[in-house]
Amino acid sequence: MALKVSRRGAVPAFIVMDVMQAAADREAAGGDVLHLEVGQPATPAPRGVIEAAKRALDDDRIGYTLAAGINPLRERIAQHYKDWYGVSLDPSRIMVTTGSSGAFQVAFLAAFEAGDRVAMASPGYPAYRNILSALGVETVLLETERKHRYQPTPELLDAVEGKIDGLIVASPSNPTGTMLGEEELAALTGYCKEKGIRVVSDEIYHGIGFGTRPVSALESDDQALVINSFSKYFSMTGWRLGWMVVPEDLSRSMECLAQNFFISPPTLSQHAAVAAFDCHEELQANVARYAKNREVLLNELPAAGLDDLAPADGAFYIYADVTRFTNDSVDFSKRMLAEIGLAATPGVDFDPARGHGSLRFSFAGATEDMVEAASRLKNWLKR
Amino acid sequence: MALKVSRRGAVPAFIVMDVMQAAADREAAGGDVLHLEVGQPATPAPRGVIEAAKRALDDDRIGYTLAAGINPLRERIAQHYKDWYGVSLDPSRIMVTTGSSGAFQVAFLAAFEAGDRVAMASPGYPAYRNILSALGVETVLLETERKHRYQPTPELLDAVEGKIDGLIVASPSNPTGTMLGEEELAALTGYCKEKGIRVVSDEIYHGIGFGTRPVSALESDDQALVINSFSKYFSMTGWRLGWMVVPEDLSRSMECLAQNFFISPPTLSQHAAVAAFDCHEELQANVARYAKNREVLLNELPAAGLDDLAPADGAFYIYADVTRFTNDSVDFSKRMLAEIGLAATPGVDFDPARGHGSLRFSFAGATEDMVEAASRLKNWLKR
Repeated sequence: MALKVSRRGAVPAFIVMDVMQAAADREAAGGDVLHLEVGQPATPAPRGVIEAAKRALDDDRIGYTLAAGINPLRERIAQHYKDWYGVSLDPSRIMVTTGSSGAFQVAFLAAFEAGDRVAMASPGYPAYRNILSALGVETVLLETERKHRYQPTPELLDAVEGKIDGLIVASPSNPTGTMLGEEELAALTGYCKEKGIRVVSDEIYHGIGFGTRPVSALESDDQALVINSFSKYFSMTGWRLGWMVVPEDLSRSMECLAQNFFISPPTLSQHAAVAAFDCHEELQANVARYAKNREVLLNELPAAGLDDLAPADGAFYIYADVTRFTNDSVDFSKRMLAEIGLAATPGVDFDPARGHGSLRFSFAGATEDMVEAASRLKNWLKR
Repeated sequence: MALKVSRRGAVPAFIVMDVMQAAADREAAGGDVLHLEVGQPATPAPRGVIEAAKRALDDDRIGYTLAAGINPLRERIAQHYKDWYGVSLDPSRIMVTTGSSGAFQVAFLAAFEAGDRVAMASPGYPAYRNILSALGVETVLLETERKHRYQPTPELLDAVEGKIDGLIVASPSNPTGTMLGEEELAALTGYCKEKGIRVVSDEIYHGIGFGTRPVSALESDDQALVINSFSKYFSMTGWRLGWMVVPEDLSRSMECLAQNFFISPPTLSQHAAVAAFDCHEELQANVARYAKNREVLLNELPAAGLDDLAPADGAFYIYADVTRFTNDSVDFSKRMLAEIGLAATPGVDFDPARGHGSLRFSFAGATEDMVEAASRLKNWLKR
């Protein structure tokens, strides 16, 4: 008898993966590629982290840890909230996770029932939608515009028909880079508190900013569910390590879910990550490079004809309107890769309804790649 | 307004975690503990793996990988099926995962809908039940007995009322250690094929056996969904790395689920694990130690009065009937820890209905600990 395949498992792939595959094929055939599609730092982990990993390989058995992570790391993360946000947290509220990906799974299962409805900005990170839909949670896309700075607002939430059980905020946002200020974020957490909406705050790009102070949802709501990661500012993508600040009402179920779903986060990464908080000098040099890259693109893209860009307050992305040139960003990005070796991500990954008119450029790479990309784009779009 | 907490997130903790906490408290207070509760090797990863990890720290950026893992590792795992089972597999059928835990999540979401029913042996590994229940899948516990060698049989499946969508088999089983022979496993996969029941075969203890050849479900069903891990035989628990052999009909949804839920498995662990397959000499020395430990317990536990033991064909567990002494294995294990410093896991973790009469002893530790544990137990139970 034929076996069943579940419908809920049929989540979409990231379209960026197709771009990455096409870029790899081009490189395998001897072509060159400027990688402005990839959302990860071009740098390895800071030196102190690598040294700490080597020490752990010599000294530690690399066995299972507590499901919530090793205590020295939880304590160091709690201290980080004091250092960066002036927020005091008991280390027991920190749960170390297998990347922010692992945090989202545990958070969504602990907070939301199948059939619940969770709102989020569109454009936004596609895995939010896809994880939620596989878990039977309905996503409510708030179609944000430039006037909203591509962020949710109480007004957008008020306009939603039917109940809302949760709200995901991401500041800086992927793909737009926009950030929520203190007042804007407090207005959102206040609104949600009043309406009984669970706030999940994705803060994984904190530390990568260009003048705007990153604000944590904890500053206005001490029970916000905050998710963060070592992947971006700390430049540790492949180490698969993130963390959550756990609201008290979810603490027990999150611990049990983490035990059952993960046993524990990667142990070597945990030992190494303790050292990450002593590496700010090296990490700030990365941020300085991102700032330079951002400046190149913000100056040069308009000169190439792409002058409608989301305000890139933080993260390493520029989200550009390309409707002057195309109404099919997937085809446009294919041609751009084939004709000038420039890889970028079509907006449909982030905004299923309107992303056909947008492209995301990542400036996490080398500055010379940004200069070259802008120059090729100018010549290409001139034609 | 008060926030909702999801019911599905309220999965039970592993009771072994309470035992581990009590053991840690006893040690913190200066007491000694013989750790027969923990299901992980006392050894670190083999030397070749540690050296490969150090090389990767020097040479690799440790960035994201493909969601299914790096190709050299997928190729090495495919070769392993040729070497151990005589089964030819295209490396594209191997998906590297974040431990077997990550494999179970992806497998269950890809194969089963909310409301589906999945059968498994009781006693069995508790995370199967708990992950499935959080994902809305009903578990059907097959109450296996000694005459079934604590394994599912076509007869037990036939006796289930209502439909069954999936069957989890685990050979060697945790907690009983029993293994399915070639004919028994083929009878199960054949039955399931006929009835349209998806077989998920947990083979994470393969390699740790004492005379019985481990049989893969792939030998009788080339589309079986097989899950394995680097944690047990390869002695790499904290590295959080496992793999799946992916049936063709689930291949696309599993890849997309893995992208969205995990991005990729831990990169450093992947590079290091390639070397694991060249470390059999060191790993076989571990198995020789387990064999010695097993012999100690199989000889000494009956002398202590525990003479009803499941046949420990493989893995590093002995599942003992303790009903001669207690009808409350949780209380019994607490007293055993408090009075003689011996930690073991109450059977209720593995068999909610009948585990009050059983204890699981893990012999993954040092041989002298087994000798000492048996001696203390003899004196204690004599009283």
